[in-house]
This record gives sequence, C-alpha cells and structure tokens, in this order.
Amino acid sequence: MNSNNMIKKLGRRLRLGVVGGGPGSFIGGVHRGAALMNEQYDIVAAVLSSNAERSIQAAIDLGIPRGYGSAAEMIHSETNRKDGIDVIAIMTPNSEHFSVACLAIKSGLHVICEKPLTNTLAEAEELERLVAKEKVHFCAAYGYSGYPMVRQAKAMVEAGDIGEIRMIQCDYVQGHLAELGESEKDGSNWHMNSAVAGDDLIVADIGTHCYHLCQFVTQMLPASLSAETCVLTPGRTATDYTSIQLRYDNGARGAFWITQCAAGAEHGLYLRVFGSNGGLEWHQEQPNQLLHRQLGKPARLLTKGGPELYPIANRASKISIGHPEGYREGFATLYSEFAEAIIADITEEDNQNDVFVYPKIAEGVDGVRFINTALESNKKDGLWTSLN
Amino acid sequence: MNSNNMIKKLGRRLRLGVVGGGPGSFIGGVHRGAALMNEQYDIVAAVLSSNAERSIQAAIDLGIPRGYGSAAEMIHSETNRKDGIDVIAIMTPNSEHFSVACLAIKSGLHVICEKPLTNTLAEAEELERLVAKEKVHFCAAYGYSGYPMVRQAKAMVEAGDIGEIRMIQCDYVQGHLAELGESEKDGSNWHMNSAVAGDDLIVADIGTHCYHLCQFVTQMLPASLSAETCVLTPGRTATDYTSIQLRYDNGARGAFWITQCAAGAEHGLYLRVFGSNGGLEWHQEQPNQLLHRQLGKPARLLTKGGPELYPIANRASKISIGHPEGYREGFATLYSEFAEAIIADITEEDNQNDVFVYPKIAEGVDGVRFINTALESNKKDGLWTSLN
Amino acid sequence: MNSNNMIKKLGRRLRLGVVGGGPGSFIGGVHRGAALMNEQYDIVAAVLSSNAERSIQAAIDLGIPRGYGSAAEMIHSETNRKDGIDVIAIMTPNSEHFSVACLAIKSGLHVICEKPLTNTLAEAEELERLVAKEKVHFCAAYGYSGYPMVRQAKAMVEAGDIGEIRMIQCDYVQGHLAELGESEKDGSNWHMNSAVAGDDLIVADIGTHCYHLCQFVTQMLPASLSAETCVLTPGRTATDYTSIQLRYDNGARGAFWITQCAAGAEHGLYLRVFGSNGGLEWHQEQPNQLLHRQLGKPARLLTKGGPELYPIANRASKISIGHPEGYREGFATLYSEFAEAIIADITEEDNQNDVFVYPKIAEGVDGVRFINTALESNKKDGLWTSLN
Amino acid sequence: MNSNNMIKKLGRRLRLGVVGGGPGSFIGGVHRGAALMNEQYDIVAAVLSSNAERSIQAAIDLGIPRGYGSAAEMIHSETNRKDGIDVIAIMTPNSEHFSVACLAIKSGLHVICEKPLTNTLAEAEELERLVAKEKVHFCAAYGYSGYPMVRQAKAMVEAGDIGEIRMIQCDYVQGHLAELGESEKDGSNWHMNSAVAGDDLIVADIGTHCYHLCQFVTQMLPASLSAETCVLTPGRTATDYTSIQLRYDNGARGAFWITQCAAGAEHGLYLRVFGSNGGLEWHQEQPNQLLHRQLGKPARLLTKGGPELYPIANRASKISIGHPEGYREGFATLYSEFAEAIIADITEEDNQNDVFVYPKIAEGVDGVRFINTALESNKKDGLWTSLN
Repeated sequence: MNSNNMIKKLGRRLRLGVVGGGPGSFIGGVHRGAALMNEQYDIVAAVLSSNAERSIQAAIDLGIPRGYGSAAEMIHSETNRKDGIDVIAIMTPNSEHFSVACLAIKSGLHVICEKPLTNTLAEAEELERLVAKEKVHFCAAYGYSGYPMVRQAKAMVEAGDIGEIRMIQCDYVQGHLAELGESEKDGSNWHMNSAVAGDDLIVADIGTHCYHLCQFVTQMLPASLSAETCVLTPGRTATDYTSIQLRYDNGARGAFWITQCAAGAEHGLYLRVFGSNGGLEWHQEQPNQLLHRQLGKPARLLTKGGPELYPIANRASKISIGHPEGYREGFATLYSEFAEAIIADITEEDNQNDVFVYPKIAEGVDGVRFINTALESNKKDGLWTSLN
Repeated sequence: MNSNNMIKKLGRRLRLGVVGGGPGSFIGGVHRGAALMNEQYDIVAAVLSSNAERSIQAAIDLGIPRGYGSAAEMIHSETNRKDGIDVIAIMTPNSEHFSVACLAIKSGLHVICEKPLTNTLAEAEELERLVAKEKVHFCAAYGYSGYPMVRQAKAMVEAGDIGEIRMIQCDYVQGHLAELGESEKDGSNWHMNSAVAGDDLIVADIGTHCYHLCQFVTQMLPASLSAETCVLTPGRTATDYTSIQLRYDNGARGAFWITQCAAGAEHGLYLRVFGSNGGLEWHQEQPNQLLHRQLGKPARLLTKGGPELYPIANRASKISIGHPEGYREGFATLYSEFAEAIIADITEEDNQNDVFVYPKIAEGVDGVRFINTALESNKKDGLWTSLN
Repeated sequence: MNSNNMIKKLGRRLRLGVVGGGPGSFIGGVHRGAALMNEQYDIVAAVLSSNAERSIQAAIDLGIPRGYGSAAEMIHSETNRKDGIDVIAIMTPNSEHFSVACLAIKSGLHVICEKPLTNTLAEAEELERLVAKEKVHFCAAYGYSGYPMVRQAKAMVEAGDIGEIRMIQCDYVQGHLAELGESEKDGSNWHMNSAVAGDDLIVADIGTHCYHLCQFVTQMLPASLSAETCVLTPGRTATDYTSIQLRYDNGARGAFWITQCAAGAEHGLYLRVFGSNGGLEWHQEQPNQLLHRQLGKPARLLTKGGPELYPIANRASKISIGHPEGYREGFATLYSEFAEAIIADITEEDNQNDVFVYPKIAEGVDGVRFINTALESNKKDGLWTSLN
Repeated sequence: MNSNNMIKKLGRRLRLGVVGGGPGSFIGGVHRGAALMNEQYDIVAAVLSSNAERSIQAAIDLGIPRGYGSAAEMIHSETNRKDGIDVIAIMTPNSEHFSVACLAIKSGLHVICEKPLTNTLAEAEELERLVAKEKVHFCAAYGYSGYPMVRQAKAMVEAGDIGEIRMIQCDYVQGHLAELGESEKDGSNWHMNSAVAGDDLIVADIGTHCYHLCQFVTQMLPASLSAETCVLTPGRTATDYTSIQLRYDNGARGAFWITQCAAGAEHGLYLRVFGSNGGLEWHQEQPNQLLHRQLGKPARLLTKGGPELYPIANRASKISIGHPEGYREGFATLYSEFAEAIIADITEEDNQNDVFVYPKIAEGVDGVRFINTALESNKKDGLWTSLN
C-alpha cells in the first residue's frame, strides 16, 4: 500500500505541468487524476489547447494555478521559477510529442509521454539519445502496465512460475469504431487522420499496447513478425483490424488479434501467456484478477491485494483486497513509481532505481519499431519480417 | 463524464479539511484520493492523529498545507481565515463522529461523515436537527452508493423497469476476520472494541452498508425485521455473523447474509433485487456490470459507460466504456456530487439540488435505527421487530 | 471414468421399469435418459399414464417393450417373469409415491423414487421400515448430488480441507413461477395443488433440494430452524418464497434463500460452505467448476475431470476434462452408483457397498421431516423449532 | 424438447451398429451414450477391437447383443438380417474411416463418421460421390455443432441479427499435450502417429473443429488462408500449435489460435463472430450461454432453454432452462437429427429433410480440403493459399 515515504523524504510534493488533454479529451482527466490521487504531485501548470487564449481559460476553469499559451512558454517560464515544475506530462496529438519532449528534456524536465512515442523511428531514437544525455527520467505512458495484476504476471514470469515461455496471445477487441462516427466523417478526430496520428491507426493506437504488454510481462521481444492490417468498415480510410503473428528466438510463438470495429464490444484487452509449467490469463475489463493455470494442478485465482502476490503487485495496489481498482488507479501507479524514482534521485538515495517500475523510453522506441515493422510486413502480404 | 462546470462557475476548487485517517488508516487515503481525483477539492487542512504532534507531522509528510492538533482547533482556525475550509470530512473512530460533526455544523461547515453516523440513535437524531437548523450540507459516506451501476440500478427501480419490488437479497461475505488478528488480541483495533465501535461489530460495520444499499436502490425501508447476530470464530467477542430477514409494507421480503469470517472470501458485497417484471444483480467485486434479468426476455448485461444507461449512471462515470472504475472512483462520486450541491448553493443557482445524489443525513439516521432494531430483535431470539 | 466393470460381472444390464413421467413430463425423459446413457440399464417396462390405455400407447410410442395399465399390474407381471425388472423408478405425482413404493419394496424390487419421498412423515418412516425389512436398495432421487463437483465438495469437507464447518448458505432462485401460469390457473399443474403436492410448494419442491445438498456435502443435520414461507405473487395460493435459518450443534449457522418467482431468473441453485480453513462455492448453472477458497492462500478453481480431485468425483465423471457434463449426467450418476450397488449384492461381491454413493432412504425421510419442521416454524412466525 | 414423434411414426427405434470406440476409448462411450439417451436408437451390433476375439468379448461386457470380429463381417451379417442395423457409426482410427465407410455406404447403410473424414482429399471426394450415388444419409460427427447455443448462433447469423459478417475468431486452447505422454513416447497413441492420424496432428485433430464450427455458424467458407503449424513441445514430432488467418470473399477476416500444449488449460474452444450490427461469443466450457453483443445496445445473455431462441436451438435442447446440458447432449443432438432425417425418408414423409440439421458429408470433405490447404501454406512459410 501507499506509504508515501518518498514525499516525506522530499518534504514536498512534486510539481507537474501538463501539455494537452484539454476540454473534451478523455486522456487529460485520466492523467491529471492519476497524478493527483496518490498525493505525490500538485498540478501547477498547464497548456490545455493549441489556442493560447483557450488554453489559459481552461486552466482557470480547472483550478490549475498557472495556465500557459504554449508548451514552449510553459517550459521557459517554469524552468525559470524557483517553484517551477519538476515533471511534464505530454498528451498532445502524436505528431507533437517529439518537439515538446525534446524541449522539455533539454530543459532538464522529467517527462511522461503518451504512446506512440513519436510518428517516426528516427524521432524516437533521437529522444532516447537526448534522455541518456540529459539524464532525465522518462516514462512512456503505457497505462496497462500499471495494473497490480499485470505486475504480478510480470513477476511470475520472471520467477519462472510458468516455466519457459511458449505462447503469447493478446486480443484487443474494441467496439467503439464499429460505425463511422461524425468526428471521423468531418475530419475533426485526429486519431483517424494519418497526417497527425501516423500511418496506421490500429497498430499505433492499440497494437502498441498489446506489444508493450507482452514485452512488459515476458521481458521478451520477438525476432520477427507477420502482419495483416486492413480496413473492415465500409467508408473508412484508417485501418481498424490487424492480425499479427510473432516468432521469438526461443521458438515461442505469439499472436495478436486486434480491432476497433467489433460491433458491441467494449474494451477487450485480453492477455494469455503459456509456458512449459503453466499459464496466465488477464482481462483488462476484470483487472483485479489473474488466472494462474498450472500443469497438473488446479488453476489458482490470484486477486489484487490477496495472498501470495509478489511485492511489485502489492506496491501497485493502494486499497485492500476485494475493493476493485480500475484504469485510473493503474495509470496512477505509473505516476507513483515515476515520482519515487525522481525523488530518489533528488534526495540522493542510494541508487535503488531498479525497484521503481514504469515503462522507460526504450520501451517507447520499441513500440515505434514494432509499428514500422508491422506496416512493412503488411505491404508484403504478411511476409515474415525481422524486428532488428 | 466530468465536465467540472461547477468549478468553472465558482472560480476555484472547494477547500477541504479532514479529521482522521492518519498513518496506517485504510479509509484516510480513500477519502483524500476521492476528493482529489476529480479536481474539485484542494485538501488544505488536516487532523491526522489524536496526538497533536503526530497529527501535525503527518500533515507535513503528506504535503497537506495546514496540520492541526485537534478538530476543534482546525474548525476554529479555518472558520476564521478568509481562505478557510468549506467542507470537513470526518473519518475518526465511530465514537467521535458526533462531537466533531456537531462542532463543524454549528460552525457552518458542510460535512462528510463516515458510517455509522453515531453510536446512539439520540445522537444521530440530534445531528439531523442541527443540520436542518444550520442549513449545511451533510453527506453520510456510504461509499458503495457512488458506483455508476448502483446508481443505474436505483434509476431502473425508480423508472419501474423491474416492476413492483418483491424480493431483496444482500450478501456481504468478507473473509478478513476469519482468524483472530493480532490487533484484535491486543485490543489495538478499535473496530473490534465495542466501547468505541458500538455494541455490535458486524451490523454496524458492514450490515449498515447492506441496509443503505437496499434503501438507496429501492427507495424502500422495511417495516420490520428479524435478526440473529452472533460470534462464529472461537475466542472473539465482537460479532462476526448476522442473518437478517426483512418485511416491507408492500409484502416484499428481504434477507441479508452477512459475515466477516468467511475463510478465504474477499469482499463479497452482492445485491439482488427482484420485482414483478425482472431483477437486478450487482457484485461489488465486478462493479462495472449490472445484470438486468427480464421476465420472458433474455438478460441484459449493462455496463458502466455503455448504452442505454440513465443519466445518473453516466454522471457518475468519469472514463469511457470498458475502462474499469473501482472503489475509489465510486467514493469520488460522492465527493463530486456533494461538491456540486454546495457550489450550486454558493453560486445561487436555481435550486436544482435534487439532481445531486449523495446519501443525506436522514440515511445516516436510518442506519443507526437499523442497528438498534437488529440488536433488539437478536436479544429476543429473532422476534419480528418494527423499525418505526 | 465409466469402466462398467459391474455389468461385465453380472453378464447383462439391469432391467428397469418406470412409473410416471409420461408424455409432457420433464422428469420422465431425465430419468430414462439417465438410466440409459451409461449402458447399465435396459428400460423394459413402463406405466406412463394413470389412464391404462394411454399408458400402454405411450410405451409403444417410446419404443419401450412392455407397457402396463398400472403400477400394480406392472409389479405383479414383472415379478412373475424370468426376465422381469430388477429396479423400479417412481416419478409419479408426490401423493402416489408411497403406495407404489410400498408395493414395489414388498415385491422385492429395488426402488428409485423422486423427492419429496412422501407427503407425510409417517409414510416416509413406514417406507424406511419396509426397506430395512425387505433388504432392498432404495435411492431418493436428489439429482444434484450426482454432479461430480458436488461429490468433490463432499469429499473435501469429509477430508477436513476447509476445517470445521461454520456457515452454510444455499440459494435457490428460480424464475419460472414469476407469473401465474395457465396450468396453475386451471388447476392442471399438480405441483401447484396442495392436495397432491403436499402442504407447501416451495419447501417441498425445491427447499428439500437445498436441505439435501447441504446434508450431502457437509454430512451435518441442523438442530433447529426458523422459517418463513409465503406467497409473493398476487393471485397464487401455493407458496413461492421461503427464507430459512439453521442452527447446527457445533454452533455453525445456515441460511436458505429460496424462491420460484424471481422474474427472469433461471435455475439459481448456489451453494456456499465455509469452514475454519476455507470455503467452497458451487453453482448448478456452471456445474463443472468448484471454487475452493483457502485461508491465507489464493482460491483454487477445481474442475470436473481436472487435477487433484478425490476418487468420488472422478468416478462420477464420464468424459474428459473441459467437456462439460450437465444435469442429465449428474442424474445418471445416481443410476450408475445404484446399479453398481445392486449388482455387487447380486454377484455376492465382498460387501463394499460403502463405495457406492447415492441418497439413501434415510435422506428421503430427513427431507420430509425438514418440510414438516419448516411449516411448523412458519406457523409460529419463525420460532426456532427443533428438527429432532 | 424431445417429442420423439418420429419414433412413434416408425413404430420402433432405429438399430445402430458401432465400429470402434472399444475399451479405453473416450469417444466410444460418447457415441453410444449419445445414441441411447434420447431413446431413438437401440445399439444392437458392435465391432470394438481390431482383434476379433477381443471385439466380441467387449460387446458382451457392454451388454450389446451382437458382437462381430470385423466391420466387414458386421456389415455383411447385419444387412442380411430382417432386424439388422439401419445405421453404422464409425469411430476407428482416421486411416480406417474410408474403407469402412465405403463398404457401409455400398451396403445401403446410413453412416455417422468421426472427423477428419479421411486422410486424403481424394478419399473424401470418393465418399461424397458414393453417398450421392447410394442415396444414404451421412453425418460427419462434428460434435460441437450439436450444442443448442451453437445452433442459436447459426440461426442468428442466418437471420441477419448481427449484420454482415466482418470478423471470425476461433480459439482452441487445450492443455492435455503440454507434456510428452507415455503413450506418445512408446508410440501406442495413434493420434500422435502421422501414418495413422494423417500428416498433421493439430490441424486434423482440432483445427478441423474450428473450421467446421465457423462454417456451421456463418455458412461462409474462406477464399484463402495463411497458416503456420509447428511443434512447441521439446521432443515431440506431431505438431501441437497452429495459427491460421482466413480471408473471405466479402472482405471479412478470420483467425484461429489453436494448440494442445497450453499447460494447465482445459478444453478452450471459444468462438467469436462479429458482424456490422453485433457479435456472438460462445465458450464450449460454458456451452449453455451465448453472449449477443449489439451495436449501440447492451449485450444480451441468451441461455439454452431461455426466451427468444430460434426453433433450431430449442429443438436441440432436451431439458428446461437452467439445467445445464453438456458435451454428450450436444453429440446426442447429431444422433437425434440424423435419426429423424432417416425416419422421415423411411416413412415417406414429405421431403422436409431441410429441417434436420447435422453436418453432411460435404462438410466432411471441406474439412479435409482445409487440412490440405493449411499444410500447403505452412510449407511456404504462411503464403496466402486459395481453398478452391
């Protein structure tokens, strides 16, 4: 559970500035609530619109102390204040991630950035170089990796509880694009616009979540993949279906079944990992349970806050057994772990950064490489294509 | 979803002071996170221990601006500041609810108070009179009533979607007291101490949740009840099992099966309501689903954020379909609705307070009356006893 | 799995005659299919209507070799044939169970009889005496006790896997009587007619199943009970709701919540048993799973045909893991165990009858005693009433 | 429900002979129980071993009247008796299906044959020609197509309830081959021997079930496929993993994820079909439910025996709502429908054969073609390969 010992050590909360996620955004409230709910951050600065006036008004309306007209202005002003922000959270449209992150990193700010990291691999790699050079902390906001039971799965795989990995299956079967929406028809939804969102909707938007989730849990990256990505909904231009097969160096196989046009489906993120001794099954819609199948023994039903969890799972759970935690709490775990890593640095703790678990910039780069490789394989009608 | 229009109207967030929930408390973090996560409150003052020094240090450690040595001191100081608190949240041991709440109400503060409201019915009724006299807002913190799908259930019953109510069944099958705990043996757990927690653990601690949940959803109060409450765990003095039967004026029947000593169980709050045309089933452990059984038609699986919900359910949901919300979000809904009711008053909105749904003080009084009546019936070996 | 070694020993299948369950009956096909599907019985004789002509025609239509005009005629003829029946199965209206069973037992036939055994306790006890005297085998057809995972639960309780029993909860929430049916209004449904079905519908019809299931699994009988049984559906005379509390000699508590008028519900038989070390949960609608909760350890999900089951569960399962078995297979287990017990006698096996598990006549008598006691308690507004 | 009107019409049950499924076989008991439980067949003849003596003894031990030393002998003798068999059921090792079926068809017997139909496409097509020529009925025993809710799914797709099909996903994730078994190591398990079972275990053994299930439900056959089939378990020679992608003429996509080496998994057959207006989800392990997702409306939970089912689902259900039916009942539906089709012919009913739904020989041929195409694609590293 949350002891907040790090805040005690620092003597204050971290100060956060947000860029993006203004009125009408889903992800804006998720990030801000995630940052606030564990009492480790105060949100003191914000850019909430590409229109300066609307941005400043939105900050007032949300009760955020300092609204700015642009990310550049915010970064400049805040880094020149004594009580300026420590951390910046970027949740703009994908095409702007790179420029805002570059500026922030160069200004010495720690960064939390939405996925996909950037629209090109070159940009992603450039960010990775900058982070290394400037020695800032960087979190790629793959929110599903914050769930306690996803972390339990990761720890179990690492401990060898299911043996050597043989098979990974990740479904992501959403329904919200089963019909053409108004914002899609009139072009106002940037997610459906490849100039902003990147070349391929489905792989970048949710395929990357599958890829990261598998990577996070198994600590394995595939050697090659075969992908088909296509449009199933008449009248749409952005892709809404992809099926991707994966081969791992140890002979294991993976498969993704991903769509956003499954009529009537909800969120549908479902992970199954099987090894030589057992398997793990996790549904995002029931995130507080993890089914542990065992070779020759009955399945165990592990639950958040319950018995026999690894420390990484218990660290991520803020309330007691049987009280469900949801998506926002999972997201909040990323913010918490990130805060503790930063404070450990500030307070010159012995280097125990390894205990703070959040997706690092390398994982963001891996995600962009995955998108590129999937699109390349698809162009060649599913040819098996190396990820290296 | 959360528009926070009320904050916009007021031009600032509400200022909250908390009493109780210090280091080691489960409910403290729940309340504070619930208040913070929707960006409607700043927590600016706190009393976090009955020891003044520890209280003040705890506030510093949590990053709360103003720590106080006692509730009286906090109320006095804050009501004399221009930027003092608007609202007080009370999560002390049960026996102190009454005195703190009295002082706060008399000082014109709005109050959120944990259940059970008080340890005696006389105190509860006195608080009710004070609230009416001082015209403050008062929220009895029955957290389960904040879940979107519980609110959907309430709206469906009210709309007649399941016809006339015939049967209500509420299970609450917890497992955390299946063994005598250390804090129980050494007396440090005030929940197990009747001098502090009231005469009967199980009815007061979780029975009241069942009672309120049924009342909240059906808007019906039973006419009489038959109760057995007893100790099943050897060596325990506080009760850990109760079975209560209810009769309603319209002929409907209710039954509660409540325990905290079901070995291996988790939270186990499970509500079933059947009417002449259908039924509703809700599990707190999977709170984002509501099963709607229909006479002569297949069951519908209603989901948080999904289609065909009533406005009250959608108001309570902050994130989109398929992204689970948990216990803390449910709790946050109480804080949100309470904030909006208060701001509507402050900003002299037309009286639309009816749209803000949170448990009022009368529901807190009902809960204490229920406890008293159940204990009375139990003393008479389950004699049917009137609740009036 | 089914080895059918007993048939091999006997050199032929057992010969079965059925009384009742003619055209339009639900339970007739269940019994006959249950008898046939494991290849241990041939059904060679039948009485399928109280009208002799219709009975004989129905046997022809079903392809049963010998149809009779009455039970008496069948018993007389068959016991005078060399290839006559060994076993009689009685599934007539309740009020006829006694007379048919008496005649059969006196004629030396083994008997399978539907529940409730009889409409009066005196008749039930008379049957028990006759069975003892005539040394025939008698099976009370409590079908739910045939499910593999119910048998697993029984074996686990017996082995002490959940410790000392503390709580038993059995729900039986059916929906098929949520409205007055045509056959109820016109009187053609004998189940709703107390002259035929006994004084109380709900307790006799399905309450006895709860009672037996708890008895079968825990091997405990309650010392006393408190019951309410009433009519919730306007216009009905037969009871359709009962809530019964139980006290056991060791201090354990039990509770039944039973109805047939839960609009939109299906079958709803749900058993929960908690002991000092764990608990068991079983739903008839998903009968191939048994949830084993453990104190301080994660729950285990036991499955029919799966690992770590007791022999009694594996004996009752005819097909491999993951292939679901249903209600008729559970019923068939009673027939199988009964067949093997009879053949063991016939073939003069060493007395290993203990290994054959089916509800004996004493359990039928217990069921009638339970009905009587519940009705007596109900008349006294729920007074705790001894079962001895 | 089962009226057995056809047996009434014929004046007797059909007479069945079985070939294969002797002692130790799983599928033997399934077939015989399925034939018996609905009272439409008597099993009068059997070949239960390739060893004549053992075959005849096994028939005696099972109480089957006429045991034979070989299929040829049985077919010859029975077709020369007045009371000889009407129908033959073939459940031998795959490599013998062809020869036995040929002989039976040429002798005018109706045939029920296990899948895969044959080991080569040429043989399958030859059988199809023979069936057409001899005008017998032929059932390919794809057992999962007998489940009531699979039939409901079929009827819903046909009625357009989910709109135009866009996506089909079928998982079949078994665990029983997660380790090398003794019978695999010593070669006694014919399923693992390609000389008997065909070139590829996983595709032939369970892949064909997925293929048929999708075909049965959607009435669509894919135009092309891309397949990978491989061995994941060290030391095994037979394949135990396959992932297959499908393209349909209307643009729809399909995907199979199939394995028998998922450690700790059970049966794992899971079908999802999405169309433009909704989707259907069915799990074999919970076969009595069908989830119907709807565009813009809450999901409906359809249940066997419940409201709003199509006649084809109700025909296949033998017992009332809430009483689960399992694998053997599903299998029994194939036998029932097959019986009724045959009797309709014999009794010279008007040709209403369309109402009798069981997998025909053409579906058996489709299955063999699918196996061949999948193996061909796999050899070319997943090249998209036409099924025509």
